[in-house]
Amino acid sequence: MTNTTVAQRVSVIGLGAMGTALAKALLAGGHEVTVWNRTPARAEALAADGAQVAASSAEAMAAADLVILCVLDDAAVREHLEPAAAQVRGKVVVNLTTTSPEQARALGRWAAAQQVELIDGGIMAVPEMIGGPAAFVLYSGASAGFERFRAVLELFGRAEFVGADLGAAAMYDVSILGGMYAMFAAFRQGGAMVRSTGGSAARLAALMGPFLQAMASLLEGYAPGIDNPADYVQQQSDEFTAAAIDLIDKSAAESGNPTQLYTVLRDGLTGL
Amino acid sequence: MTNTTVAQRVSVIGLGAMGTALAKALLAGGHEVTVWNRTPARAEALAADGAQVAASSAEAMAAADLVILCVLDDAAVREHLEPAAAQVRGKVVVNLTTTSPEQARALGRWAAAQQVELIDGGIMAVPEMIGGPAAFVLYSGASAGFERFRAVLELFGRAEFVGADLGAAAMYDVSILGGMYAMFAAFRQGGAMVRSTGGSAARLAALMGPFLQAMASLLEGYAPGIDNPADYVQQQSDEFTAAAIDLIDKSAAESGNPTQLYTVLRDGLTGL
Ligand SMILES: NC(=O)c1ccc[n+]([C@@H]2O[C@H](COP(=O)([O-])OP(=O)(O)OC[C@H]3O[C@@H](n4cnc5c(N)ncnc54)[C@H](OP(=O)(O)O)[C@@H]3O)[C@@H](O)[C@H]2O)c1
Ligand SMILES: NC(=O)c1ccc[n+]([C@@H]2O[C@H](COP(=O)([O-])OP(=O)(O)OC[C@H]3O[C@@H](n4cnc5c(N)ncnc54)[C@H](OP(=O)(O)O)[C@@H]3O)[C@@H](O)[C@H]2O)c1
Repeated sequence: MTNTTVAQRVSVIGLGAMGTALAKALLAGGHEVTVWNRTPARAEALAADGAQVAASSAEAMAAADLVILCVLDDAAVREHLEPAAAQVRGKVVVNLTTTSPEQARALGRWAAAQQVELIDGGIMAVPEMIGGPAAFVLYSGASAGFERFRAVLELFGRAEFVGADLGAAAMYDVSILGGMYAMFAAFRQGGAMVRSTGGSAARLAALMGPFLQAMASLLEGYAPGIDNPADYVQQQSDEFTAAAIDLIDKSAAESGNPTQLYTVLRDGLTGL
Repeated sequence: MTNTTVAQRVSVIGLGAMGTALAKALLAGGHEVTVWNRTPARAEALAADGAQVAASSAEAMAAADLVILCVLDDAAVREHLEPAAAQVRGKVVVNLTTTSPEQARALGRWAAAQQVELIDGGIMAVPEMIGGPAAFVLYSGASAGFERFRAVLELFGRAEFVGADLGAAAMYDVSILGGMYAMFAAFRQGGAMVRSTGGSAARLAALMGPFLQAMASLLEGYAPGIDNPADYVQQQSDEFTAAAIDLIDKSAAESGNPTQLYTVLRDGLTGL
């Protein structure tokens, strides 16, 4: 425990790959950690590291002031949280299970009725990155609860509070992942295209990776035009963008590759 | 001129924003530069910098050993190159005009018949970046001609020769730009999505930009699986990817935003 952090009573419900990483970070941070997992064997290693192992999820929740859930999905969260309303009343619950924005808001309606301060979180890291410099976690919902436990949550990675709307963390999460999948899909498509000319995905990666890193730094400059269309300064005309994407589309078709991605990009980026 | 570079006779045909930047870089590099532009006024500033101004495109080509074309499109290239076969015979011609891979190959068939060493190029930079550290240019086609003039071409930015197939430079070019447009489209879409939860594109950019930079560094690791499907080590199952993209899709729909991009990403990244 660092000198500036007060030891807190924290429970972690769900000890899959991610829940285990979260519990380890809390133990390393010096907190009083109680854990529970449906399959008990997964709690053993954490017990050796100093965690208390609860006999039920409700018992784990009763033992803490901050309750963290990291199970499979929204249904598993509700299965354990709803019968434990008495154990979490007046407490801060942070749900780090991946859910949709609407699921987060719906759980928030239940939490409000039970006097639970609910925070929804979106973890932007794989388990091995938890506690490391590149990890960050998006949070939204109960801001007072977030501020109260900010120092604890910072143990997982940079804690980014993105708004009072419980759906906000999930919406930022999926938007960021959408960008990642778009990049990966374009790379896979491009790899097939350059291979048709005797090239390789390896060479493409070496060229495209640094180029996309430079382009990612331009996003901040494009944001004002999305946030305030009246401020929009067009970088290139819709006609120029459409012609550039049409050329990509034509090149994909020439190489016998699919063109759907480019058709959608043209629709998304231009009104043409 | 640097000590290690021999002054070469180089022509630049087309003095738009890009051709002007190329001619300036050649003059700064100490070469004997002859220029021509359809609208003569655009040649004046370069004449003041030491360029010879030719009276016709054919005259400009006759005056050089290395001929660079940077005009609007393939049609404009052919309009000037075909009648000047006698002026370019035995020379190296580098076409930096944006064309499709098939257009580059078709011009290559003409060039082979005329004993012209043709190189097609794709400039990965805006004019202001020419000669700077972030600019690079993709080249393909006549490799001997490329090696002969490599030092000259390096004046524009890093010179990346991607293969003997004349279509290769254009195919790498459009593949890389496809990744850029995919990133921009996902950001525009995500900006609208987070705004529906009270968020902002500015906040999204601050979070998504560095995240995508980290993800871009993973492309090299994914390349072997594209180049050699037998070596493919799946990072996450198709089912996991499909479920993750379905959640993005659902979140977009919940926020009243379009879902086509995510549908295409799901198709492109999974066989499901
Ligand atoms: N792994 C990542 O990279 C990553 C990144 C960001 C977010 N997440 C999110 O974190 C959450 C957990 O992921 P993970 O990687 O830890 O998954 P995992 O390794 O597959 O573990 C799933 C966990 O959920 C538990 N579980 C499933 N159904 C349950 C139920 N009905 N009741 C109680 N527990 C149940 C499992 O218990 P058993 O041990 O008994 O099966 C296990 O502890 C998911 O929502 C995931 O989307 C993961
Ligand atoms: N600008 C960039 O960021 C960039 C980046 C990568 C690649 N490129 C490529 O570079 C090429 C030139 O782009 P640019 O930015 O310089 O465009 P630009 O500023 O619009 O200039 C176009 C040039 O093409 C000439 N031209 C057009 N039709 C012609 C014809 N039939 N005969 C002779 N000349 C003709 C124009 O001559 P006039 O002056 O007489 O009109 C002008 O010199 C394009 O293929 C473009 O795709 C540009």
